[in-house]
Amino acid sequence: MPEPVSIIGASGALGFGLAARLAHAGREVVIGSREPERAEQAVARARAAVPDGAFRGAVNAEAAGACELVVLCVPFRNQSETLHNLRDVLRPGQVVVDATVPLAAAVGGKATRTLGVWQGSAAQQAQEMVPAGVSVVSALHTVSAQALRDLDHELDEDVLIAGDRRADKARVAALIDSIDGLRCVDCGRLEMARLTEQLTALMISINVRHKTHAGVKITGLPSELWPAAAPAAR
Amino acid sequence: MPEPVSIIGASGALGFGLAARLAHAGREVVIGSREPERAEQAVARARAAVPDGAFRGAVNAEAAGACELVVLCVPFRNQSETLHNLRDVLRPGQVVVDATVPLAAAVGGKATRTLGVWQGSAAQQAQEMVPAGVSVVSALHTVSAQALRDLDHELDEDVLIAGDRRADKARVAALIDSIDGLRCVDCGRLEMARLTEQLTALMISINVRHKTHAGVKITGLPSELWPAAAPAAR
Repeated sequence: MPEPVSIIGASGALGFGLAARLAHAGREVVIGSREPERAEQAVARARAAVPDGAFRGAVNAEAAGACELVVLCVPFRNQSETLHNLRDVLRPGQVVVDATVPLAAAVGGKATRTLGVWQGSAAQQAQEMVPAGVSVVSALHTVSAQALRDLDHELDEDVLIAGDRRADKARVAALIDSIDGLRCVDCGRLEMARLTEQLTALMISINVRHKTHAGVKITGLPSELWPAAAPAAR
Repeated sequence: MPEPVSIIGASGALGFGLAARLAHAGREVVIGSREPERAEQAVARARAAVPDGAFRGAVNAEAAGACELVVLCVPFRNQSETLHNLRDVLRPGQVVVDATVPLAAAVGGKATRTLGVWQGSAAQQAQEMVPAGVSVVSALHTVSAQALRDLDHELDEDVLIAGDRRADKARVAALIDSIDGLRCVDCGRLEMARLTEQLTALMISINVRHKTHAGVKITGLPSELWPAAAPAAR
């Protein structure tokens, strides 16, 4: 069995779409939400979408402790508080996949604009807030929540990821690549999240213009992006 | 005949690659450079690459006045000086395609990092510096200069463009789409250049890791991106 995954904020659009896709790909998913009722409602919705999926509901703090792989799918305005609340739960060795995007919409601005984050990016803010030994990998900024959630929609796009440890990125890539039609591309160190997070605003601008759920593909890459023989750390 | 195009900084890598591709596509190209000798050398190199190409060499100021479509392909450290020198040459109605990227390399930093530009982006700095009535369209940040220059390399990627006037973007799209394997995608208003310019640093980071000349494609778009019946202005 592939290792299970916890999704913090899985009652939200992106988290829910990801939970459905991962369960559909045979992954056990812990659905985290702030309130137990909302977690259970999300589990019920997820089971309706993926009847043979292995789901379990939990409040965020319990979900964050349940798996080695934890995906953080919360709006930017909740990221700091959420991580603050998880500071005694997360433990060394865990990998936190941060999908947070500092859209200006968090403070009432446009979704095609972003906020400046002191640390440079939401992912770097996350890395600063998690306990020592917890590794943050930035990912999933260009994948449409709606496209994820609609299991009949055939995905065919890349997920740009950034992180400071190659081995952790490979682990996240194995998770995400298990979803049909998604391919993880290593974009470099965690600081590159400054660039990849911005792409959500770009996708939104493109979507508005073209009435679609656009995605990104990187051209010119070799066919084998995550060779198993890769060194454990970069 | 399609309208001719001037390229400012066409003796540099991106400008030269673009000149070669555009001439190969049947476009008359004015090759601009700071020194007349360098312009003539670039013309000689361009003729060697595209024997049936229509090239003409000129110093930048002459080149900038020669065509309605002017592509600015200079390093960020030269952008401001170049536009300052062209302030009496550019005239209302012209479209300046700005390909400038504020890489930190301009001040000795890494090419995977960018500088903050007061106006938000190099393209917005350009729009501030050109005479009133000259329209800036931001483009060409994700296309590898080497891939452009190697005419045997089959291109298959998108060019993300941003600008405040839809009609001007359509004009630039007609220019760039004439190159086989390139497709222009409208990313919104000129301020979106804040996001698209960053992609050069992202491409460089990906290229270093994967030893390639990566490009970008946007998935999920309709087949007809620039309908001729589009309104003249957005």
